Amino acid sequence: MAEQIPHEQWAAVIEKDGGPISYKKIPVPKPGHDQVLVNIKYSGVCHTDLHALNNDWPAERKTPVVGGHEGAGVVVAKGELVTGLEIGDLVGIKWLNSSCLSCTFCMQSDESLCQAAELSGYTVDGSFQQYAATNAAHAARIPKGADLAAIAPILCAGLTVYKGLKESNARPGQSVAIVGAGGGLGSLAIQYARAMGLHVIAIDGGEEKGEACVKLGAETYVDFTTSKSIVDDVKAASGGDGLGPHAVLLLAPQERPFQQATGYVRSKGTVVCIGMPAGARVSMPVFDTVVRMIQVKGSYVGNRQDTQEAIDFFMRGLIHAPYKVVGLSEVQSVFDLMKENKIVGRYVLDMSR
Amino acid sequence: MAEQIPHEQWAAVIEKDGGPISYKKIPVPKPGHDQVLVNIKYSGVCHTDLHALNNDWPAERKTPVVGGHEGAGVVVAKGELVTGLEIGDLVGIKWLNSSCLSCTFCMQSDESLCQAAELSGYTVDGSFQQYAATNAAHAARIPKGADLAAIAPILCAGLTVYKGLKESNARPGQSVAIVGAGGGLGSLAIQYARAMGLHVIAIDGGEEKGEACVKLGAETYVDFTTSKSIVDDVKAASGGDGLGPHAVLLLAPQERPFQQATGYVRSKGTVVCIGMPAGARVSMPVFDTVVRMIQVKGSYVGNRQDTQEAIDFFMRGLIHAPYKVVGLSEVQSVFDLMKENKIVGRYVLDMSR
Amino acid sequence: MAEQIPHEQWAAVIEKDGGPISYKKIPVPKPGHDQVLVNIKYSGVCHTDLHALNNDWPAERKTPVVGGHEGAGVVVAKGELVTGLEIGDLVGIKWLNSSCLSCTFCMQSDESLCQAAELSGYTVDGSFQQYAATNAAHAARIPKGADLAAIAPILCAGLTVYKGLKESNARPGQSVAIVGAGGGLGSLAIQYARAMGLHVIAIDGGEEKGEACVKLGAETYVDFTTSKSIVDDVKAASGGDGLGPHAVLLLAPQERPFQQATGYVRSKGTVVCIGMPAGARVSMPVFDTVVRMIQVKGSYVGNRQDTQEAIDFFMRGLIHAPYKVVGLSEVQSVFDLMKENKIVGRYVLDMSR
Amino acid sequence: MAEQIPHEQWAAVIEKDGGPISYKKIPVPKPGHDQVLVNIKYSGVCHTDLHALNNDWPAERKTPVVGGHEGAGVVVAKGELVTGLEIGDLVGIKWLNSSCLSCTFCMQSDESLCQAAELSGYTVDGSFQQYAATNAAHAARIPKGADLAAIAPILCAGLTVYKGLKESNARPGQSVAIVGAGGGLGSLAIQYARAMGLHVIAIDGGEEKGEACVKLGAETYVDFTTSKSIVDDVKAASGGDGLGPHAVLLLAPQERPFQQATGYVRSKGTVVCIGMPAGARVSMPVFDTVVRMIQVKGSYVGNRQDTQEAIDFFMRGLIHAPYKVVGLSEVQSVFDLMKENKIVGRYVLDMSR
Repeated sequence: MAEQIPHEQWAAVIEKDGGPISYKKIPVPKPGHDQVLVNIKYSGVCHTDLHALNNDWPAERKTPVVGGHEGAGVVVAKGELVTGLEIGDLVGIKWLNSSCLSCTFCMQSDESLCQAAELSGYTVDGSFQQYAATNAAHAARIPKGADLAAIAPILCAGLTVYKGLKESNARPGQSVAIVGAGGGLGSLAIQYARAMGLHVIAIDGGEEKGEACVKLGAETYVDFTTSKSIVDDVKAASGGDGLGPHAVLLLAPQERPFQQATGYVRSKGTVVCIGMPAGARVSMPVFDTVVRMIQVKGSYVGNRQDTQEAIDFFMRGLIHAPYKVVGLSEVQSVFDLMKENKIVGRYVLDMSR
Repeated sequence: MAEQIPHEQWAAVIEKDGGPISYKKIPVPKPGHDQVLVNIKYSGVCHTDLHALNNDWPAERKTPVVGGHEGAGVVVAKGELVTGLEIGDLVGIKWLNSSCLSCTFCMQSDESLCQAAELSGYTVDGSFQQYAATNAAHAARIPKGADLAAIAPILCAGLTVYKGLKESNARPGQSVAIVGAGGGLGSLAIQYARAMGLHVIAIDGGEEKGEACVKLGAETYVDFTTSKSIVDDVKAASGGDGLGPHAVLLLAPQERPFQQATGYVRSKGTVVCIGMPAGARVSMPVFDTVVRMIQVKGSYVGNRQDTQEAIDFFMRGLIHAPYKVVGLSEVQSVFDLMKENKIVGRYVLDMSR
Repeated sequence: MAEQIPHEQWAAVIEKDGGPISYKKIPVPKPGHDQVLVNIKYSGVCHTDLHALNNDWPAERKTPVVGGHEGAGVVVAKGELVTGLEIGDLVGIKWLNSSCLSCTFCMQSDESLCQAAELSGYTVDGSFQQYAATNAAHAARIPKGADLAAIAPILCAGLTVYKGLKESNARPGQSVAIVGAGGGLGSLAIQYARAMGLHVIAIDGGEEKGEACVKLGAETYVDFTTSKSIVDDVKAASGGDGLGPHAVLLLAPQERPFQQATGYVRSKGTVVCIGMPAGARVSMPVFDTVVRMIQVKGSYVGNRQDTQEAIDFFMRGLIHAPYKVVGLSEVQSVFDLMKENKIVGRYVLDMSR
Repeated sequence: MAEQIPHEQWAAVIEKDGGPISYKKIPVPKPGHDQVLVNIKYSGVCHTDLHALNNDWPAERKTPVVGGHEGAGVVVAKGELVTGLEIGDLVGIKWLNSSCLSCTFCMQSDESLCQAAELSGYTVDGSFQQYAATNAAHAARIPKGADLAAIAPILCAGLTVYKGLKESNARPGQSVAIVGAGGGLGSLAIQYARAMGLHVIAIDGGEEKGEACVKLGAETYVDFTTSKSIVDDVKAASGGDGLGPHAVLLLAPQERPFQQATGYVRSKGTVVCIGMPAGARVSMPVFDTVVRMIQVKGSYVGNRQDTQEAIDFFMRGLIHAPYKVVGLSEVQSVFDLMKENKIVGRYVLDMSR
């Protein structure tokens, strides 16, 4: 196999904050002792990649850096310490490129909290290149026969909402309100929630999004552009008792829903923050929080086991994420559309063009 | 026994918002089919009683109402449906006087969330009387031989902090920061935390409180009146790794600590709101909440099982709450001291004088 | 309404161990202060009723006793302490007729473990009568519009398997092996498991049962009459990794599967015992139990909240239990068929004939 | 430092099943890329080492192999991939020498269930040598200043009982019965249980052991050599209600207690199997298991986080394990005593002699 690996490759490199991103030739990396080299076939483009390009998050980014963290491809080389992965295996590169695997967080399977974690397309080169190196223990295992273009968005978007649903503690048969249900994360969240036996109250704006949500499996749709009281409408939608949903997933890119959610969540229910509107705060009255025993928590990306579980739901045909494929060379145009909020579903880059 | 129950009794009755509370003779109530009549020997005076007197909470209070919800006494009569309690048994009357025991919250042992719950000294007559009726299933079971004056504060203050510690999810060997550790709730919280195998970081103001906290078992004391950075100091105090305590208990009557706690709690840690400063909000940045997977939750009074557990810790000699006994007739003077923040420890009323 | 309640009614009464059961007229009971009187419309016949008739369990049974514990009907009278139920409401009478609601088990929502629990059709008169009294807090709440004949089997059989699945700790996306999947409990278990997002490996004997299991949603069927190694076959059926199912539900009326299950359950998985073959023991090697960290547990009937959840799944149209309706007067013939193991699905008695 | 590492060292090597173990000079190993080389100062001798010597367990052992899995020492060299450990750091070598860190069990922090795990003194060379190599991620982190002889037994015996207590699900304030409380594991278990806020019922044989148990913190002692009914006596010892302890830890080297424990454990309680008597089975009646909702589970060695927690309890001075130090050259005499059941407490080997 080794002879097939070229010395140079095409990549999309962030060289200047705000872009444009450079489509150019760079050297192919060599895998370290505990790494695999992955021939990336497809990579999703995530909103986080735009934050990386703009460098507008309160966390340090490497410059220059190859973007991308939703890459699906094939192992073409491996370091000598790598076990459990062979040349030819399908793997995914995700946001968490590596972690120390020996701090207290890693020891407890919370590797996303590792203070030495490396982030694809942010602190290390990511998946917007034809050949990417990644820590073998962190590479997502993709079953043979998977559609690599279709699975790419699962590696970050799918994983993130699946993790949020797990963190919500909602059990099969209970209800979850999904705020921003009509967006990219939201449409995946509806499907994961359904596959997990949950009843979905979708919240978003506009009729078109409502139809899409119901089609994906939401039982009720609350339209914030026409609702006179979101709190009342969500409560009314939550089963026969009107006590509110057991959990709320906040995927919206605005701050306002973060203040509303504690108003309609069921007593002893859980509000899960996932979306990260710039500079937003979540806030709630102490009295109500106490006497209704509400909890609000943040959910970041899932761990490695969550990744495999999110993939398993996909492989069983339970999750369908609409996506559109364009060439890697067109990545800047995807960012342009993203800036204008013109993207419905997910763009996936074909590394071969 | 029946002949010993008088027709009239002394009681402290809230008749006018803001007080003064009336010390007067009123009829002795008759227990309903599912109630016991309790000859109250002692009753603690809680800060919540002052809120009841002032009627300054966003929840409706009955008028007139006999105050009090930390009463310890003896069963002197019982309704025909009562099982598991006999004349002569020791019992406690707590904040939750009754609940429906058949709604979804009661079915799940969250009776404090029952929408039909009756609250002692608030929606029904409480423990500031010599003979009080209470739902038998909700009466706290007090073991024979208990010191009824000493146990009274356990029935609300002790129960509340014990429940908060349970809700914190902190496991034996982990650390908990207690904000307001030098106060009445705080001093109980330190002792319960220790008995539960937790390591305590006490946070309060002033040297005197610091000494008291350490004496009760706190490992470290952070004085907010002298600390240059509470966040840094609390993190430094949390074991060798400086990652912050696994849990935070907010008992303070001010809003500010509610904003600080998410700054020093360990990633994936839990901030528990218990104190309810008037009109306060708890608030935190979404970005930090998400990437550190922090949770903030409210903890109200414990359920019936929590009550028995809190009492069990007390009966084993692990909890010592300093208290001072005065006669029921002096209850207004206790409220006067409370208004001036002059109370250290707990006042307990002797019903016989 | 009161005038419509007759003084006499038809009932099926166990008067002699082993039967036959007496179909006769008896007085209509009066509800106690905390009871409702239910006009039973339909009652399922459960295998437990046969144990009651035979009096062959190591637990004392009342004599004479009206049998039955899967009754669905309408509230026609209520005691003065009853809240949350009105005349005309639909309710169910289940195995747990009442419990003390104040012991340590009841306080923790484990009312089936209450040592003072009364059992319908066993220690108190059950649902094989036209008018039955039951503790209002324990009566199952049935939503308006429910099909009372169809819902009857949910009140015991459905509840029991749903509880077992909850106790298995299996999460959505994980796999569960159901032993005895082709029987009455098993066919319900397959459907509940599917609705909870679980993947089902059905185990039973014979082709016909296999087809039925797959039709109900099982992913794989292992036929113990033809399998060369049940352990190997179940492991092979559990997803791609062959590590075995995360949980096993033992519904079979034989002892042998109880010894096999720990052989194929996944390491750190859970084996749940539900069926109770007479005199059976469950047993496993200590070495394997330890180094694979397996757990084996018993699951009895669900609590009141479990009941409402089991009903909710049914009301959403996710559970279909095949049943056949005959008149109450024909109950002995149902027992006769049961003794001969000739029953597929459930028999439901129509109280009006 | 490198020059201080010799080429040869003293070691105790299992060359022949049944022994004697060879005390001889062997080469010093070189650490791999992800390993550290540890200059072992002290190593405990565990009963498992005797099983390794005798090769009488149903799991394959390497031959020849350096024994031992409770080694405490100093890092003297490290591979290039090692992070989080420096030359001079104190570390421990435990039963789990390494695992793949990327299978589904490792991903969920259950590395002891990893099918590629290497076991010190069993499948790879262990701690009975002056210089041992171990996977850096699996090396226990020992705080500076620790007494290396005293901490050695914590690395396996302490960890094992601590893990068992965690797996028991017993909460602070609840009770746990420890079977074999007077032995080496038992005396550690009593201390861990106490530090975790649990109440201990010690079970063992003989007055002397009883006194030792009570001195270590047990509330009650049940002597199986004199008890007329262990079930009755344990139930009587469990708090005021006589319902039995919430959990049972089985540390005994006999099979009989494994059959008794389900008789006295509280309904919905947990029996944890830890000890592994040769060929033993655990067994219980299905009826009782179901209607009392009992669970029986196995607990193996703890994971890496458990290890750090077990060490933390020790470092806080809460755990005192009696031990006796002899030279590595005397290891065979320790095995001889062990075979004759003549060891009280733990033997710790000094590697320097």
